[in-house]
Amino acid sequence: MKVRGYAAMSAKAPLAPWEFKRRDLGAHDVALDIKYSGICHSDIHQAREEWGPAIFPMVPGHEIAGVVTSIGSAVSKFKVGDLIGVGVFVDSCRVCEPCKNGTQQYCIEGMTGTYNQLERDGKTPAMGGYANVMVINEDYAVTIPANLSLDGVAPLLCAGITLYSPIKHWKAGPGKKVAVMGLGGLGHMGVKFAAAMGAEVTVFSHSPSKEADAKAMGAHRFVSTKSEGFHNKYSKHFDLILNTVSAELDINIYLSMLGVDGTLVVIGLPGKPYSVDAGSLLPARRSLSGSMIGGIPEMQEMLDFCGKHNIVSDVEVIKADYINEAYERTVASDVKYRFVIDATTF
Amino acid sequence: MKVRGYAAMSAKAPLAPWEFKRRDLGAHDVALDIKYSGICHSDIHQAREEWGPAIFPMVPGHEIAGVVTSIGSAVSKFKVGDLIGVGVFVDSCRVCEPCKNGTQQYCIEGMTGTYNQLERDGKTPAMGGYANVMVINEDYAVTIPANLSLDGVAPLLCAGITLYSPIKHWKAGPGKKVAVMGLGGLGHMGVKFAAAMGAEVTVFSHSPSKEADAKAMGAHRFVSTKSEGFHNKYSKHFDLILNTVSAELDINIYLSMLGVDGTLVVIGLPGKPYSVDAGSLLPARRSLSGSMIGGIPEMQEMLDFCGKHNIVSDVEVIKADYINEAYERTVASDVKYRFVIDATTF
Repeated sequence: MKVRGYAAMSAKAPLAPWEFKRRDLGAHDVALDIKYSGICHSDIHQAREEWGPAIFPMVPGHEIAGVVTSIGSAVSKFKVGDLIGVGVFVDSCRVCEPCKNGTQQYCIEGMTGTYNQLERDGKTPAMGGYANVMVINEDYAVTIPANLSLDGVAPLLCAGITLYSPIKHWKAGPGKKVAVMGLGGLGHMGVKFAAAMGAEVTVFSHSPSKEADAKAMGAHRFVSTKSEGFHNKYSKHFDLILNTVSAELDINIYLSMLGVDGTLVVIGLPGKPYSVDAGSLLPARRSLSGSMIGGIPEMQEMLDFCGKHNIVSDVEVIKADYINEAYERTVASDVKYRFVIDATTF
Repeated sequence: MKVRGYAAMSAKAPLAPWEFKRRDLGAHDVALDIKYSGICHSDIHQAREEWGPAIFPMVPGHEIAGVVTSIGSAVSKFKVGDLIGVGVFVDSCRVCEPCKNGTQQYCIEGMTGTYNQLERDGKTPAMGGYANVMVINEDYAVTIPANLSLDGVAPLLCAGITLYSPIKHWKAGPGKKVAVMGLGGLGHMGVKFAAAMGAEVTVFSHSPSKEADAKAMGAHRFVSTKSEGFHNKYSKHFDLILNTVSAELDINIYLSMLGVDGTLVVIGLPGKPYSVDAGSLLPARRSLSGSMIGGIPEMQEMLDFCGKHNIVSDVEVIKADYINEAYERTVASDVKYRFVIDATTF
């Protein structure tokens, strides 16, 4: 299948138009016209080879929303015309414990990333969502509720599930005090989900100008981290803190705000390790935990939740030829709150 | 009440015989003849003022096993002649959430330590268990099963509960794979408890000579951390890892051995912070957690469990005049596995 997309030909090159091929439709495959494709900060890290050796040419993109155009002979989950989403992985081993229980993101062999990785045949480079069409095994796609604005849905497939999963796993809800560190592409989804689930939501941000946005998204409190001793008022206050910030910070300050059995969940990948005092953990049986996207059943659950609560990402829709500028602005945190590419412009 | 004990008069002084007074018996108090008093590594840190400003004269000791000799007018929990234990704290606020649910070790105001702390009146220095007699509020003491060897019971009040609590909290048991890092005063209790609860138990130790002991205590596997790449065989293997080691180590190596949703629990207080890669946590939703002793109900539960399974600490009983030498040997990890002072020698 012929595809028009945008690719990085090397770590130093800007992304540029590129034509390539995808596999022909297999029995369990679905073909889709991509409608919108989100820009995730991890696209930039990978296209610039900042996370170790990368595979070029690279077509990034793992926040994909589209419409089914044809289905393989054995497909039962989708029909032509269905709204369909694809996220951060397109395959996994299917037989390990995590795969069997629907947490494919923790596949013991490792999930197959949507791009910058070889397919499970060990030789075909996977190509992502900055493109006009895609082929996906039906088991690794999810159904998008019809009532949602499709451009705002695309980022749910990565930014959305990345926050939804820990918020569900650590049981945010009525009576729970949740804090979100950072109000960006990830953080703003955390605020929306935690608020929709009934938790008390606090945002910690170094951008005081975002307070009104945070509250409009459902936050009950906004704390600027620019003020000295901002954390003192919240000693042992929170049940769950979600850290979406990649910048270096003193994690012990945030751990000190967790109550007994509280958990601080790391979602981003900062460049440097955290320096964790054991004394930040012991006195309240606190945990520093990590969470990575979510599995296929949970992605579907999240989309259904979004349909019910009318939740989408706040997006700025761009044309394909704006990708490189959007990359610069994403790195500078100059986006409210996610860039999404109109796939008709590839 | 007149007491004979051993005290540190300053951070630099060796411990020496010292006579002092304890409060007279209150309505809710119990007096006990101390029979055995364990030596915890934290006694040494505090007596040497290595954990911040300390209160001198200091009578250390928070692993106390004795016999009730008199009871206050309102005491209902104990009678004269009962075997009784006192651990790391002798009071707490009693009204906060953790106190009300029996996890007094996480008292929001802070528990009142058994020594090196002021009582809740804010002026009386608490004096610990290196002494012949003690007075304790009945709510902060526990009953010792009669079938256990009393010298081996004393360390259960700190080393024992410190391991029992996380092993219970994180649900070690049949089908669970538990690792204990370090086979010392804390670690050897972890092995005994995890094995008694039916878990598969692995010991990581830098002392290959301890293998036979570890297996006699119930360990199914002993791994010497001296061999290069010792961890490679155990990638994603464990459900729970208990770190009793205070020495500096690469915690990421141990985190890599946790399976999905696995937890590494920090029990000791190393001098330096841990350097934690977010990439050690995210790919398997792992947690780095802390745990600190246990509450009164859990201490009683542990002692009952020990009575049923005939579990005590492996101890070397010493006379009071050997305390300073025992301190040196404890620092050098030259004890199998806990020093316990015969309190008749004070």
